[in-house]
Amino acid sequence: MTQAVRHDSMRARNLGVVLGEVRRSGPITRAALAEITGLTKTTVSKMVGDLIDAGMVTESGALRDGERGRPGTAVTLSGERVAALGLEINVDYLSACVVDLTLSVRLRYTQAVDNRTASPVETLAHLQKLFHKAVDEARSEGLSIAGSTLAVPGPVDGGRLHSAPNLGWHDVRVGELLNFPAAVDNEANLAALGELWFGSGPGDFLHVSGEIGIGAGLVVGGALFRGARGLAGELGHVIVSPEGPSCRCGGRGCLEQYAGQEALLRAAGLGGGPAGIPELLERLHAGETRALEACACAGQALGIALTSAIHLTDPGTIVLGGIFAPLFPWIRDPVHETMTARLAMMRHAVPELTVSRLGGDAATLGAAGQVIHRVIADPWTHVVTGRTGPGPR
Amino acid sequence: MTQAVRHDSMRARNLGVVLGEVRRSGPITRAALAEITGLTKTTVSKMVGDLIDAGMVTESGALRDGERGRPGTAVTLSGERVAALGLEINVDYLSACVVDLTLSVRLRYTQAVDNRTASPVETLAHLQKLFHKAVDEARSEGLSIAGSTLAVPGPVDGGRLHSAPNLGWHDVRVGELLNFPAAVDNEANLAALGELWFGSGPGDFLHVSGEIGIGAGLVVGGALFRGARGLAGELGHVIVSPEGPSCRCGGRGCLEQYAGQEALLRAAGLGGGPAGIPELLERLHAGETRALEACACAGQALGIALTSAIHLTDPGTIVLGGIFAPLFPWIRDPVHETMTARLAMMRHAVPELTVSRLGGDAATLGAAGQVIHRVIADPWTHVVTGRTGPGPR
Repeated sequence: MTQAVRHDSMRARNLGVVLGEVRRSGPITRAALAEITGLTKTTVSKMVGDLIDAGMVTESGALRDGERGRPGTAVTLSGERVAALGLEINVDYLSACVVDLTLSVRLRYTQAVDNRTASPVETLAHLQKLFHKAVDEARSEGLSIAGSTLAVPGPVDGGRLHSAPNLGWHDVRVGELLNFPAAVDNEANLAALGELWFGSGPGDFLHVSGEIGIGAGLVVGGALFRGARGLAGELGHVIVSPEGPSCRCGGRGCLEQYAGQEALLRAAGLGGGPAGIPELLERLHAGETRALEACACAGQALGIALTSAIHLTDPGTIVLGGIFAPLFPWIRDPVHETMTARLAMMRHAVPELTVSRLGGDAATLGAAGQVIHRVIADPWTHVVTGRTGPGPR
Repeated sequence: MTQAVRHDSMRARNLGVVLGEVRRSGPITRAALAEITGLTKTTVSKMVGDLIDAGMVTESGALRDGERGRPGTAVTLSGERVAALGLEINVDYLSACVVDLTLSVRLRYTQAVDNRTASPVETLAHLQKLFHKAVDEARSEGLSIAGSTLAVPGPVDGGRLHSAPNLGWHDVRVGELLNFPAAVDNEANLAALGELWFGSGPGDFLHVSGEIGIGAGLVVGGALFRGARGLAGELGHVIVSPEGPSCRCGGRGCLEQYAGQEALLRAAGLGGGPAGIPELLERLHAGETRALEACACAGQALGIALTSAIHLTDPGTIVLGGIFAPLFPWIRDPVHETMTARLAMMRHAVPELTVSRLGGDAATLGAAGQVIHRVIADPWTHVVTGRTGPGPR
C-alpha cells in the first residue's frame, strides 16, 4: 500500500513536471520532453496520453525534432477543456471570468449590485447565481471548471475575511458561507497576480488597486509577498496625515480618505455609485477646475503613501490599476512629483510609475489564473477525474 | 577537466550537506550522518576528516548510536578555529565583534568616534585599525577570520551606500574604498538577522533599530525581506506627518524627526552625543516631566509609522531594538495605544510589541553571523585553505 502511494505520488510529481514543460516550451515533441525531464520515452508517452485524455494537452502536428531532423508529433497546452473561474465581490459590483488552461479569457461578466446595503448572505446568494451561470455557460462551450477563487475587498486569513469596512463586513467566514466550492483571497493580492500573468508581466512591482478601498500587492521575484499571516498590502490604510479624517477602519487620515473612489468623487463635487467615475472623467476632459484639483490632491496623498511604501518595501515599479488607470493622465504628475521631492535625495532612482492595462478585471483574472497555475503545477487530480476509463495508466 | 570540476562541485555540495547536518543535529556519529544524508559511510568519514583538519568540527567522545546501541565517536561543530568578524559604522561609534563557528561571541569592541565630522576616507581609516586589531586578537586566541561584513547606517546596493544622511554620506562606494576585505550591508538588515540568530530566535518579526536614524528589518519564514534592490526597511523615513519638520533625507515629517535619537533628546531638552541616552534614562527614572513627554511623543510617532508598516507588510511581532530597548518601559504604552487605536478594528490581533535583548550589538552580531551562515552553507573554500597538505581528500 505504502509502495503504491509512493508510486502514485512519484507519478503525480512527474506528471506536473511534464505538463509544466509543455507550458514553458510547447509545442514540443515527446522525445524532447523525455530529454529535458530525464524521464524515459515510455513514461513520457504514457503521461502525454493521460494529459490528452484529460483534455489538458493536444497534438499540434509534426515538428522537426531539433538537430536530428526526425519530424515528431508535437504537443501543446490545450484551451479546449480545462478552465478556471475567477469571481469578485466589490462594493458596487460582482464580477466573474472564465480562463482556460492557456490563460485565454473565455467569458466575462460584471453585474452592478450595491453590496453596501446587502448582508453577506444576500451578497453571496447573488454570487452563487453568477457562479452557476458561469459554470453552465462554460460547459456549453465544452469547458470544465477545475476550480474557482473568489476575490474580496479586504484582508483574508484561512477563508475568513477580517474586515471589509467598505462593505460594512467584519469578521465574516466567507469560506464557510459559500454554497459552492471556491478559495477566498484578497482582491488586491489577486489583482497583483492578474497584473503578473495577464498584464505587464514578470518583474518586481507594487500593483495598486484603486477602488472604493485601495489595496496593493507586492510582487518580488515572480511571487506575491503576503507577510506573516497573508495580510500584507493594505496601502489604503497607510497613514497620510495622522489627524486627518476618520476612516471606516477605525483609524484616521488613511490614504483611502484622500484617494479612494468616494473621497475623490466627493472632492470633485460628484455623487458615488457606478456612474461617478465616468462623470469625473468627462469633467476632467472638459478641464473643470474642481475635478482637476480633486485629482491633484488625491495624487499628492497617493504620492505620500507610496513614499512610505517604497521606503519600507523597495518595489521595482509602481503599477496603478483600478480607477487609477483611467485617471492616470491626471494623477500621474502629482504622484510622481510628490515621490520625487521626498525620495530622490535618498534613492538614486525613484520607482517608475506605470499604468495597468487590465483595468477593473485584474482581480478576477488573477483569481482564475491562480487556479490555472495550481492545476498546471499539480495536474494529477484533473487527470484522474477528467477522463473516463480505468484511471491513469 | 570538466569531469573533475563537476566532481569537485559535487564534493563541495556534499561537504555543505554534512556540515549543515552536524550544525543541526550534532553531536552526531558518522553512521548517523551517513544515514541522514544518504552518502556512503566512506564518503562521510573522509568529509568529517577534512572538516576536522580544517578545524570546523571536532570529535566529542563516544555517543550511543540510536537504537542499535553501538557506541560511536560523535562529531560536533568546533568553535576553536573558524570565526567571523562583524563591523559597524554608526554616527557616533565604530564597533566590532568576533563570533566563532558555533555562534559564540568571542570578542567585542566599541569605539566612540564622531563620524559626522569625518569624511568617509577618515572613518574607514579608523575602521581599518579596528579590523586589524580584531583580526590580531582573534589570531592570538587561535581563531582564523573566515570573512567579515560591515554594517552601515543606510541603504546599500552592491557595496554602494546610497545615502546615510546622518553621516552626511551620499553615494559612497564603501566596498571600493575599504582597504580590507569585507562585504557591506545595511545596519538595520543586519540587526534583524542578529535578532534572528542571537536574540529572540525564529519567528516572523519586524526588528526596529533605533539609533540616530531608524531602520527596520523584516524577517518572514526565517529570511530577511530585502525588496527588489535590497533597499527595503527604511522605517525612519516613513511619513508620520506630511507637513512635519524637514528631514536630512530631503523629505518632511519622517519618523526619524520625531523618534530618532537626536529628535528625542532635543525634545527632552538634552544635547546629543553618546552621553545623551544615559542622561535621558536618568531623568526618566527620576520622573522628569519633559523627558516623559518626549518619550510619549516619540512613542506616538513610532506607533503611527508602525501602523503604516503593519498594514503594508503584516509582520508577526514587532521587536524594538537600539535605543528603543532601554527606553522600552517609557515608549511601550504610547506605541501600543497608538497601534491599537488605529489597527484593532481592522485586524483581530495587533502585533505583539517586544524588546530586543541584544541592544547596540545587534548589527555587528548579525554581520558576523551572516559570514558564519555562509561558511556553514559552503565550507569547501575553508576546507581547502584551512588545512595544510595536499588539499581535500
